[in-house]
Amino acid sequence: MSSRASYLASASALAEACAGLLDRVRAQTPLVQCLTNHVASGFTANVLLAVGAAPAMVDIPGEAGVFARIASGVLVNLGTLAAGQPEAMREAAAAAREAGRPWVLDPVAVGVLPVRTALAAELLERRPAVVRGNASEILAVAGAGPGGRGVDAAASVDAAASAAARLAGRTGGVVAVSGPIDLITDGAAVARVANGHALLTRVTGAGCALGAVMAAFAGVAADPFLAATAASVVFGIAGERAAARASAPGSFAAGLLDALAEVHPAEVAAQARVETA
Amino acid sequence: MSSRASYLASASALAEACAGLLDRVRAQTPLVQCLTNHVASGFTANVLLAVGAAPAMVDIPGEAGVFARIASGVLVNLGTLAAGQPEAMREAAAAAREAGRPWVLDPVAVGVLPVRTALAAELLERRPAVVRGNASEILAVAGAGPGGRGVDAAASVDAAASAAARLAGRTGGVVAVSGPIDLITDGAAVARVANGHALLTRVTGAGCALGAVMAAFAGVAADPFLAATAASVVFGIAGERAAARASAPGSFAAGLLDALAEVHPAEVAAQARVETA
Amino acid sequence: MSSRASYLASASALAEACAGLLDRVRAQTPLVQCLTNHVASGFTANVLLAVGAAPAMVDIPGEAGVFARIASGVLVNLGTLAAGQPEAMREAAAAAREAGRPWVLDPVAVGVLPVRTALAAELLERRPAVVRGNASEILAVAGAGPGGRGVDAAASVDAAASAAARLAGRTGGVVAVSGPIDLITDGAAVARVANGHALLTRVTGAGCALGAVMAAFAGVAADPFLAATAASVVFGIAGERAAARASAPGSFAAGLLDALAEVHPAEVAAQARVETA
Repeated sequence: MSSRASYLASASALAEACAGLLDRVRAQTPLVQCLTNHVASGFTANVLLAVGAAPAMVDIPGEAGVFARIASGVLVNLGTLAAGQPEAMREAAAAAREAGRPWVLDPVAVGVLPVRTALAAELLERRPAVVRGNASEILAVAGAGPGGRGVDAAASVDAAASAAARLAGRTGGVVAVSGPIDLITDGAAVARVANGHALLTRVTGAGCALGAVMAAFAGVAADPFLAATAASVVFGIAGERAAARASAPGSFAAGLLDALAEVHPAEVAAQARVETA
Repeated sequence: MSSRASYLASASALAEACAGLLDRVRAQTPLVQCLTNHVASGFTANVLLAVGAAPAMVDIPGEAGVFARIASGVLVNLGTLAAGQPEAMREAAAAAREAGRPWVLDPVAVGVLPVRTALAAELLERRPAVVRGNASEILAVAGAGPGGRGVDAAASVDAAASAAARLAGRTGGVVAVSGPIDLITDGAAVARVANGHALLTRVTGAGCALGAVMAAFAGVAADPFLAATAASVVFGIAGERAAARASAPGSFAAGLLDALAEVHPAEVAAQARVETA
Repeated sequence: MSSRASYLASASALAEACAGLLDRVRAQTPLVQCLTNHVASGFTANVLLAVGAAPAMVDIPGEAGVFARIASGVLVNLGTLAAGQPEAMREAAAAAREAGRPWVLDPVAVGVLPVRTALAAELLERRPAVVRGNASEILAVAGAGPGGRGVDAAASVDAAASAAARLAGRTGGVVAVSGPIDLITDGAAVARVANGHALLTRVTGAGCALGAVMAAFAGVAADPFLAATAASVVFGIAGERAAARASAPGSFAAGLLDALAEVHPAEVAAQARVETA
C-alpha cells in the first residue's frame, strides 16, 4: 500500500500519521462494540468516550452479530467469559468478518486457563484485524509458550517478537504485544512504541481499554497496522500526561481519562516515541 | 391530585417541590433495587449512595422478585441482558407491580436490537411508574421509530414528545425523555428540565444512573411525575456543579458524585431550570 | 502458635505485625483470585493493585478451580450470582481447600435472599479461612439472625460477637465483622479495629474490596487472624488518610486508592487503632 510506505518512511512520518488518525477518530466518532469482561467494562467505555469514540457493550447471543454489522469496530476480550458471552463472541466475530468490519481479539490469560484457550483458538479462525496481548499471552496464542498468570506479563516483549510475526502471518492481520515498549507487527513491518508509564499497570483494565481504542482507531483507518500503532501511541502519551499530574493510581486513572480527552493531535505528533523496522 | 396542582402552578413551585423531594430522599434513604447492565452497575450504585439512597443490585432469578417486595423502588435497565437477567427482570417487575412499588424501565438501545426490544414490549405490560430513555429509545418503545445506535440519541426530544405522551397513556405512568432539555410527561402534564451539562454525555452510564435516581425519588414520592422531574433537576444541577470545577471526563465523573452528595435542597430550589406546560 | 502469642501480647505488637504484613504483601505481590459481583469487580481489582497485590477475576466453571490451585488467596463474594458463578464458586472453594490456599467468604445480604443463603451454607463446609461480613450478615450465616436489607448493617458489631465466635468454631477459621469498630475472632482471640471513616460507607464495594484485601494478606500470612486484622487496619487507615483530603464520595474513592498505594508500613504501625482481648 503506498500510504503505508509513506508513513513507514520515517519515525516522524509515522508520528504524523498517528496524530492524523486521532483527528479522524474525533471527527467520525466510530461506534465500537465491546464484548468484554465485567471488571473492565465501565472503564473501557469511559476510555472510548474520552478519546472520542462511541461505546456500545452489546454482548449477548441474538444481538451481538446484529450489532457487529453496524459497528465501526469490534472488541472481543476474553477476560471473564460470562454465560452466553462465548456464543455472542462467535456471532460478533463471524458477523464482523462477513461485513468487513475490523475486530480486535484480546486473549486475556490464555494459555493457563482451558476455556478461554480453546475459544481463542476457535476465534482466530475468524481472522481478527488485531490480536492484542502481553508477551505471555501472545506466545501462548501463537502456540509458543505456556501463558502467564492472569494479566501478568512474565515473558518479555522481545521474546514474543517472532511468535507475533508468525501469528500475524496466520491471521493475515496485525499482532500487538504490550509491554514497557509495545511491539506491533503484521509479519513484515514492525513498529515499536515507547510511550507509556508504569502507573498504567496499576489501573485495572488499562490493557483491556487499549484493545478497545485499537478497535476505535481500526474503525476509521484503512490499515490496522497504523490503527494499532496510533492507539498505542495515543494511549501511552495520555498515560505520560496523567503521570505528570498524579503519582498514585486513583487520581492517575481519572487523569488518564482527562488526558485522553484533552490530548491534541499536534501533541501526539510531537511526543510520539515510535520506531519502525 | 391537589398536591400536583399546587406544584404545577408555577415553575418556582415545581422547583421547590423538587428541592423538598431531595430532602426527603436524604431523610428516608430509600432502598433502590437495580437490575442493570454490567457497564454502569458500579457507577450507578455510587450515584445512589452519593445522592442519599441505598443501592441493592439484586438481579438473579429466585431473588429479584423477593427483593422487589421490600425495595422502595426498582430500576430495570436493559443495557446488557446477562444470562438469567431477563427472567429476574420479569420477576422484579411483576413483584413490584403486585406490591405497589414504583419501578423504572430504561429501554437502552431498544429498536435496533431484537432481544431487548421483545423484552421491553413484554415488561411494559407490568406498567412501569417511569419509562426513561433518549428520544430514539422512546420513539422505538412507543412503536414510532427504529431506535438509535446504542446509547446515542439520533432523534430530538421534541420529536419524541407526542410518542412519549401516547406511551404514558398506555402505561398509566410517566415517560421521561433525556436530552439537552429533558421532557417528562404523564400524557397530560409536561415538564421540561434545562439543567445538565454536555460532559454528562462523556461519562458512561450517566443516563443509566439517572434512571436509578428516578427510582430512588419515586420511592419516597406519591407522584412519579414529580419524582422523575426532581431526579432530572437534581442530576442536572449536580452535572453543572461538577462542570464548574472540571473540564474533562475523568475528574468530571468524580466531581459528579461529589456534587450529588453536596448539593443542598436550597440550591436545587434556586438553580432548577424547569418549566411546565 | 508462638508467633501469634507474640503479636497478641500487646496492641503495639499487633500494630507492628500488621505493618510487617503490608510490607510482605508489597514484596511478594500475592495473586488474588476474585469471584465477585459485577458491581464491585472493577473497584476491587483496583484496590488490590493499589495495595500491592495482583488481581485475577477468574470466575467461570472449568477455570475457577484450575486457577484456585495457583492463586495465593481466593475471594468468594456472593453479591450478584451471575449464571455459572455458583458452580465456579464451588469449584474454587473446593480447589482452594484441597490445595491449602486460604479463601475468604463474603456472604453479602445472606439471610434475606434465598439463593445466596443456601449457597453460603454449602460453601461454609469448605471451611473458609475468613468469613467477612457486616453484623447482620454474620448473624444470618451463623443462624442467629434474619439478615439485613442488602449491604446495610442493621445489627451492631457487638451483638454479633458471640455468633462470630461460634461461626469461627464451626469453620476452624476466622470471622471478621465489619462496622464502625471491626471485630475479628477465631473463637478464642478477639481483635477490635477502630480505624476507618464514615465515607467508606458511601463508596460502593468498599466492604467487598476489604474482603479481597483480606485474601491478599492471607496469601502471605501463616495466620488468617493476623491477615484479617492487618487488612482491616490498613484499609481503615487508608480511609482515614483519604478522608483527610476529600470530603465527598467521588474524590474520596480515588483518594482511597491513592492512599492504599502510598501508606507506608511505618505509618500503619503508628496509626493502627487496634485492641486485643
